[in-house]
Amino acid sequence: MELNHYNDPSVIDGCTVPVKVSSRSKIAPSTVSAGGVSFGPEGIVIIAGPCAVESREQLLGTAEVVKRSGGLMLRGGAFKPRTSPYKFQGLGEEGVRMLEEARKNTGLPFVTEVMDTRQVEFVAQYADMLQVGSRNMQNYPLLKEVGMQKKPVLLKRGMMATIEEFLLAAEYILNQGNDQVVLCERGIRTFETTTRNTLDLSAVPVLKNLCHLPVIVDPSHGTGHRWMVPAMAKAAVAAGADGLVMEVHYKPEEALCDGHQSIDPDELDELMSDLRKIALAIGRYIAEPRSSVL
Amino acid sequence: MELNHYNDPSVIDGCTVPVKVSSRSKIAPSTVSAGGVSFGPEGIVIIAGPCAVESREQLLGTAEVVKRSGGLMLRGGAFKPRTSPYKFQGLGEEGVRMLEEARKNTGLPFVTEVMDTRQVEFVAQYADMLQVGSRNMQNYPLLKEVGMQKKPVLLKRGMMATIEEFLLAAEYILNQGNDQVVLCERGIRTFETTTRNTLDLSAVPVLKNLCHLPVIVDPSHGTGHRWMVPAMAKAAVAAGADGLVMEVHYKPEEALCDGHQSIDPDELDELMSDLRKIALAIGRYIAEPRSSVL
Amino acid sequence: MELNHYNDPSVIDGCTVPVKVSSRSKIAPSTVSAGGVSFGPEGIVIIAGPCAVESREQLLGTAEVVKRSGGLMLRGGAFKPRTSPYKFQGLGEEGVRMLEEARKNTGLPFVTEVMDTRQVEFVAQYADMLQVGSRNMQNYPLLKEVGMQKKPVLLKRGMMATIEEFLLAAEYILNQGNDQVVLCERGIRTFETTTRNTLDLSAVPVLKNLCHLPVIVDPSHGTGHRWMVPAMAKAAVAAGADGLVMEVHYKPEEALCDGHQSIDPDELDELMSDLRKIALAIGRYIAEPRSSVL
Amino acid sequence: MELNHYNDPSVIDGCTVPVKVSSRSKIAPSTVSAGGVSFGPEGIVIIAGPCAVESREQLLGTAEVVKRSGGLMLRGGAFKPRTSPYKFQGLGEEGVRMLEEARKNTGLPFVTEVMDTRQVEFVAQYADMLQVGSRNMQNYPLLKEVGMQKKPVLLKRGMMATIEEFLLAAEYILNQGNDQVVLCERGIRTFETTTRNTLDLSAVPVLKNLCHLPVIVDPSHGTGHRWMVPAMAKAAVAAGADGLVMEVHYKPEEALCDGHQSIDPDELDELMSDLRKIALAIGRYIAEPRSSVL
Repeated sequence: MELNHYNDPSVIDGCTVPVKVSSRSKIAPSTVSAGGVSFGPEGIVIIAGPCAVESREQLLGTAEVVKRSGGLMLRGGAFKPRTSPYKFQGLGEEGVRMLEEARKNTGLPFVTEVMDTRQVEFVAQYADMLQVGSRNMQNYPLLKEVGMQKKPVLLKRGMMATIEEFLLAAEYILNQGNDQVVLCERGIRTFETTTRNTLDLSAVPVLKNLCHLPVIVDPSHGTGHRWMVPAMAKAAVAAGADGLVMEVHYKPEEALCDGHQSIDPDELDELMSDLRKIALAIGRYIAEPRSSVL
Repeated sequence: MELNHYNDPSVIDGCTVPVKVSSRSKIAPSTVSAGGVSFGPEGIVIIAGPCAVESREQLLGTAEVVKRSGGLMLRGGAFKPRTSPYKFQGLGEEGVRMLEEARKNTGLPFVTEVMDTRQVEFVAQYADMLQVGSRNMQNYPLLKEVGMQKKPVLLKRGMMATIEEFLLAAEYILNQGNDQVVLCERGIRTFETTTRNTLDLSAVPVLKNLCHLPVIVDPSHGTGHRWMVPAMAKAAVAAGADGLVMEVHYKPEEALCDGHQSIDPDELDELMSDLRKIALAIGRYIAEPRSSVL
Repeated sequence: MELNHYNDPSVIDGCTVPVKVSSRSKIAPSTVSAGGVSFGPEGIVIIAGPCAVESREQLLGTAEVVKRSGGLMLRGGAFKPRTSPYKFQGLGEEGVRMLEEARKNTGLPFVTEVMDTRQVEFVAQYADMLQVGSRNMQNYPLLKEVGMQKKPVLLKRGMMATIEEFLLAAEYILNQGNDQVVLCERGIRTFETTTRNTLDLSAVPVLKNLCHLPVIVDPSHGTGHRWMVPAMAKAAVAAGADGLVMEVHYKPEEALCDGHQSIDPDELDELMSDLRKIALAIGRYIAEPRSSVL
Repeated sequence: MELNHYNDPSVIDGCTVPVKVSSRSKIAPSTVSAGGVSFGPEGIVIIAGPCAVESREQLLGTAEVVKRSGGLMLRGGAFKPRTSPYKFQGLGEEGVRMLEEARKNTGLPFVTEVMDTRQVEFVAQYADMLQVGSRNMQNYPLLKEVGMQKKPVLLKRGMMATIEEFLLAAEYILNQGNDQVVLCERGIRTFETTTRNTLDLSAVPVLKNLCHLPVIVDPSHGTGHRWMVPAMAKAAVAAGADGLVMEVHYKPEEALCDGHQSIDPDELDELMSDLRKIALAIGRYIAEPRSSVL
């Protein structure tokens, strides 16, 4: 079946498609490039790394794991939005510099979160991609600020955001002149309590139908359970996701943050192998590091 | 990664696993047999058919479509739970007899919904499998009644039901002596309005982790949009579903009920082909009709 | 401010008002009479009693409490919809006969739940009002069956039912010829977990704006916490509710069901006194037993 | 019934009460003072004003309306979080200066929203109270920034925030040394679509039970319908709210933002009169302007 509904607002009732995100005149999906990695309709990009940068040793160790398993990009939070002020708040600028060191060691570009308009310029000097997290999806000054940078943006869906609000948040960034935006479904809040959030995989076909931006999925926050990550990662790829962002920790049981939803190196290796098969089954492929192509 | 959490209640916080459904002593997944079709950990069962039995011609025509495409079982509602009393309420007993005729013509066993304790005995004489729908998942007298029959039961998750309530509803059936129960995720109600429901695919790994019953997925009600069905059907198989139940209509644009979420014959054919590839990629297969094995 | 929007469907976007419930030609609110008690736009009716009929002693003792405090009607479940099949399932027909005895002793008419179409005729012989509970709000055969009786119906909102679905469920009853329907808001399911449900008090003005039926509120199931019942009961009256149904137990700590949300005799007395003041403040009054008027 | 559960975490299952907000050693409710207005357990504070500051004329005209009706404090947004980047974004600093002028004219102190850490210092020079809006309830840098100011803070509940997350957000502010925080319930997001949000009035007794901070209610955003505001305002006071914040516009039909949920001057007058009666019925009173006491 051809999904030839691109930019036809009538297919989703009640959703007022914004202007730049849907860009009715543009039928083809966009490609977004971050540190040499291409997000788009062909190769599926795997981003992995720890929830938070906790120490130099932890970050460099985990970056090696991501590299070896074939991941294309490193993730890791230096500025952390924590529900409680009494929990570990991240290493801040020091964490950003550790990410730079990990990139130097492994060649992996990295994405990291910004939470405050005052941090954006600093982080943009180092990071290959700026993440706006769920809790800040409707932090409009922050969206405008990242929209003024020359760095691509990973915009995560708010846990309470409708598809329309999500697209309008992206529109805030595009409206400042930055059209390098990747959307990320990461689970929405529902009444169900056996999972941390309810991963809304139908957001993948909906978003790809309504707009031209790449769409990736975060099965770690989307489920909150390490053992559920592989099943949902495979489902996300089968649903048409252009990439995955996953929490991996070289020693999950020692993680300061979200260890219960981080997979370990062996699990990542096995999952990468499974994902390659699923990607082939739907006529796509898992994007490979350029070095391995040489 | 081994999902060796079977029957370990600690893996899902806050979920009190009931006795028979989880049967801690039984590690192996159950197999449920309906009209010669086996639901279980190996072959993935495809059930398809119209939302409602609307006429003899429509049902027999659609049953042929299902048969030709390789579907294993026919679905069709004779007793219909409609939100408004002024909408088509189903053909009732006459509809059940048409389903019997379709089975005679095609060899496909059929599943159909029961809504009233007083209908159960009648329907159980004809149907190969009794469906308890979402709106009746906590209709306890109905659960007890189907629990007293010798027919397998397809139990759909309530649109508002937690995983724990879903398992306890199954427990009502098992507790009457009927352990032939297949669970079906069909979307839950959330704040999102671009889809009819939010298909909770993480329910697949959660349910398979907490209990031994087969788990299938309904991507038609789960999304409410015909063009979204293929993406979510593929995702469901990748997530580990043991089967799919989908709405197919030989002429969707003429359907009296849910035509907007029914796929047509060509879409079903193409999807079956895609599903076979996904199943292989995860080490399983789409169950084939016995006749085709000959 | 005049709420002169009666039957003007435009005031609530997206709600297709059904025919009989909204009865556009009828501006005046309906009055529903049950066992001599009038639900309508003037006196506010207090219904109280135990969650479940547990024993003759418990029921008769609690009925005396309700009588003494000025309650107008007794509630008590004989057929109980319990989430788990292993919990107390109610005393059934024996419970209904105990309710009859309590009525004889106190003069209080009673309302009790029906769950199965096969119970309706029996219960209708005894009860003054038939309750259709939340889990059965979309049990259409049951709605039709109570619609065929000559007894008034207390229809509780499903815990995940929209206002429109609630009105359409009422429409099923009216459509059978029974227009004696009282609607009851009892809390909806949301993500919040500090309360059992989220009591949606805005449903009171919305329902009264869209239809002519009396609307009452259940603050016991709506909150799930005994200590929260008084605050929400007062709020419900201030919001315009035509009555309240509350769980009271003569010894809450010994209740087999929902003791944590049942208030005790002293709390009921104090609350009745507070409710009378609130009712006066909004130009209404708490309906008094006819005997006390003599 | 005495609500003597202050600071007893056991009364709300699953809610981990944070340290300063609950301050177990402090049984008495706090009083927060903003521009001479006291929020606390006695007088109920009415805050009113336009959604957004749209023009000098509109603001000064509406401020007069609020003053005449007996409101104690003016609200009005200068920095506006709008879902779409193409809608009116507020007058910014100019709007703040207009609020100052309105204060000079009427003597009413004002509360206005801050969205960006970089605005906080500027706004704090003018405003009597800083508002952190729903979309920023988990904007932790912003919470920390307002926590470092010497101005009281009006913290609105996120539209999908649990009670626990709401208390932890307040904790971020208190933890910086600013204990002048007023909590505001303003409706949560649910599946219901006839109201803009579902006003969760049970949050009032829950919050007052779990913490010592004053709790007010916003019935304008909580319902999204002008004609529903009076019913829910009365219910909020009956439920125990320490104040109300409402959208009022001198000409609602001309409002650039949220006119459909703004009441007009006559409606405000009538409502104030009704609220005084409800407050008396529960043993409290609507706080009066000091000038009128002279």
